[in-house]
Amino acid sequence: MISVEEALARLKSQSRVLVDEQKIKLDEGLGRVLASDIVSGINVPPADNSAMDGYALRWEDWRGSDHALKISQRIAAGTPPAPLTAGTAARIFTGAEIPDGADVVVMQEKCRADGQSVLIEVVRDVGANIRPKGQDIRQGATVLQAGHRLRAQDLGLIASLGIARINVRRRLRVAVVSTGEELVEPGDIAGPGQIYNSNRYLLKAMLGEWGFDVVDLGVTADDPDVISEVLTQASREADAIVTTGGVSVGEEDHVKAVVESLGRIDLWRVAIKPGKPFAFGDVLGTPFLGLPGNPVSAFVTVLVIARPFLFDSQGVEHHEILPVKQHALFDKKGSPRQEYLRVRSGTGGVEIFPQQSSGVLFSTCWGDGMVVQKAGENITHGDLVDVIPYVMFN
Amino acid sequence: MISVEEALARLKSQSRVLVDEQKIKLDEGLGRVLASDIVSGINVPPADNSAMDGYALRWEDWRGSDHALKISQRIAAGTPPAPLTAGTAARIFTGAEIPDGADVVVMQEKCRADGQSVLIEVVRDVGANIRPKGQDIRQGATVLQAGHRLRAQDLGLIASLGIARINVRRRLRVAVVSTGEELVEPGDIAGPGQIYNSNRYLLKAMLGEWGFDVVDLGVTADDPDVISEVLTQASREADAIVTTGGVSVGEEDHVKAVVESLGRIDLWRVAIKPGKPFAFGDVLGTPFLGLPGNPVSAFVTVLVIARPFLFDSQGVEHHEILPVKQHALFDKKGSPRQEYLRVRSGTGGVEIFPQQSSGVLFSTCWGDGMVVQKAGENITHGDLVDVIPYVMFN
Repeated sequence: MISVEEALARLKSQSRVLVDEQKIKLDEGLGRVLASDIVSGINVPPADNSAMDGYALRWEDWRGSDHALKISQRIAAGTPPAPLTAGTAARIFTGAEIPDGADVVVMQEKCRADGQSVLIEVVRDVGANIRPKGQDIRQGATVLQAGHRLRAQDLGLIASLGIARINVRRRLRVAVVSTGEELVEPGDIAGPGQIYNSNRYLLKAMLGEWGFDVVDLGVTADDPDVISEVLTQASREADAIVTTGGVSVGEEDHVKAVVESLGRIDLWRVAIKPGKPFAFGDVLGTPFLGLPGNPVSAFVTVLVIARPFLFDSQGVEHHEILPVKQHALFDKKGSPRQEYLRVRSGTGGVEIFPQQSSGVLFSTCWGDGMVVQKAGENITHGDLVDVIPYVMFN
Repeated sequence: MISVEEALARLKSQSRVLVDEQKIKLDEGLGRVLASDIVSGINVPPADNSAMDGYALRWEDWRGSDHALKISQRIAAGTPPAPLTAGTAARIFTGAEIPDGADVVVMQEKCRADGQSVLIEVVRDVGANIRPKGQDIRQGATVLQAGHRLRAQDLGLIASLGIARINVRRRLRVAVVSTGEELVEPGDIAGPGQIYNSNRYLLKAMLGEWGFDVVDLGVTADDPDVISEVLTQASREADAIVTTGGVSVGEEDHVKAVVESLGRIDLWRVAIKPGKPFAFGDVLGTPFLGLPGNPVSAFVTVLVIARPFLFDSQGVEHHEILPVKQHALFDKKGSPRQEYLRVRSGTGGVEIFPQQSSGVLFSTCWGDGMVVQKAGENITHGDLVDVIPYVMFN
């Protein structure tokens, strides 16, 4: 058996970015991956501006709270100001540009004005309530780097720089193939010995959520010719191929032989539970990831093993997920494999779903994350354990 | 000022589900909200089946490791088996149905077979390596409840029950209106005194990510007639209205008067930083949420204050987000308002972005989450603090 770290390192060494670039409109950018750095062409803010509704003046012109200053102009946000007449104040609003000559803004709550002139109670230091030009971002600064996956706030930031079109990596096309003679589709009638195909729906949704274009190739019969045809099609239409089932050592598992005939396949016995059998290779040059057929094993291996490889193929900058520490509300003996226990978080700690068998897909839906239990380590009630909430995989 | 908790409680008391239901195909279900419970019509697995590739037999028939058993049938997954002939074994594969009469499966690694008969080294207890019918889910069990927002694994689970169409809540339609004479769109040229509209892109992406249908009504001029027209249109086309800017006490803020004339508006001074001014009311009966115009204030208030209300309006079952504990790598004095500090997590703890001004949108992009600093509480380097990674808001 190889450890999870070893499996990840092997995959890492064989990964490279498999997609080229395209220009898209900014408002189609959520979840997309930058292909170039975002460099600011402007200063943000473009000019000194007011952080408050109030009055702008030159600090030196204030002569105490009983000396009125004439109001010489009124500056709304979006209106270019005239230079400030010496010895006067300008009525100014939040976001409005500071006029040349003014060096401080006093909030209106500290002022009494009659429309013509204003009495100012107290003036803070030079620069108070002024947001300086370029404070947020200086012209020429790199604000986001190639490889970054765009979140809502990143789109806001790019918009604030005036950029309407961005250069992103084309979505990675991932073919999904389920194998298994026993699988029927939801909506059909399952006969004796048949079960509904759940991996197909789970994987399509997961891969789609990660920003990939899913090429859904359905279910193949347990027939080498059919499998060969489908995998050949997958290698033509996709950048990477993900299959479920068909790669253990059983006599009915034809996928291994077919992939071998079309390229190369290595079966890895990864020390991960659920999820031991994992296959990696290529089909006519297209990377091939063979996940176990058990739904929970497929779920865990796609999150833990396939995801980093697919992110690398997409060219997404991603880091190892840092688990959070929570108290275990259960006891659990360790096993020779690293276990991913399905759990639910609460204020007191994490509860474990009682049935951790790899066949029980409900265990992944019951809670909101997984505890990572290292090989050979026991967990005792009250221990601080490593929890990965599912949302962290998004 | 009112506390964040008080603001949330007020909104909660005025919220109700604003959408009806629709039937959709399962593979369009990611991120949608169940309108009805998912009740299983079947047992999962539908019959006892093998957890291993190996041999199925009756426990009593084993006579020791030197007594061969005749192989009486071969059962692949998806093939209905014949009842087991007494005193024989059946070759069986993972996922295949256990034949009547067999009560244990021995993994093939513990067997030596010549095609006709098999020698079995050791047999564990009755039931070993058999996944019992209904182990995962019993017929009639509720597996997911109305109000649940569907994740990839939930779609897998529903598929495993044979369900191809699901009853979900219609997506909440949320109108987004930016106000501010100074705003120009990315791609255009910002003249003197003008700034690029970032809130529009930030909010559209965020609301879209939460599963809402965004009705983008662009930017309105600072003109009461135009604002009135746009808000009236918003109330017709959307279930809820979100605006940015225009609701402080400044003279240029016409939104307040317009909303008052069309319905009702309350300005709340919420003890939240960034983000103090927040308005709630209705426009011709449609809920109205007025966010601050500052991008970071808009970002924080939409996450912390608007999101729970919108989720309630969508009918999503959601819980208070539980922060994770991490060590602060900074010192920070408390303020009279609850602060949401933009931070970045690492193995050693969380670093703070040095510029926490509400105008600096880059602060939200630099890191991966926020530290919640309670009003009046100081943070000292090394303290365990409450961190909310941004992904937890998804």
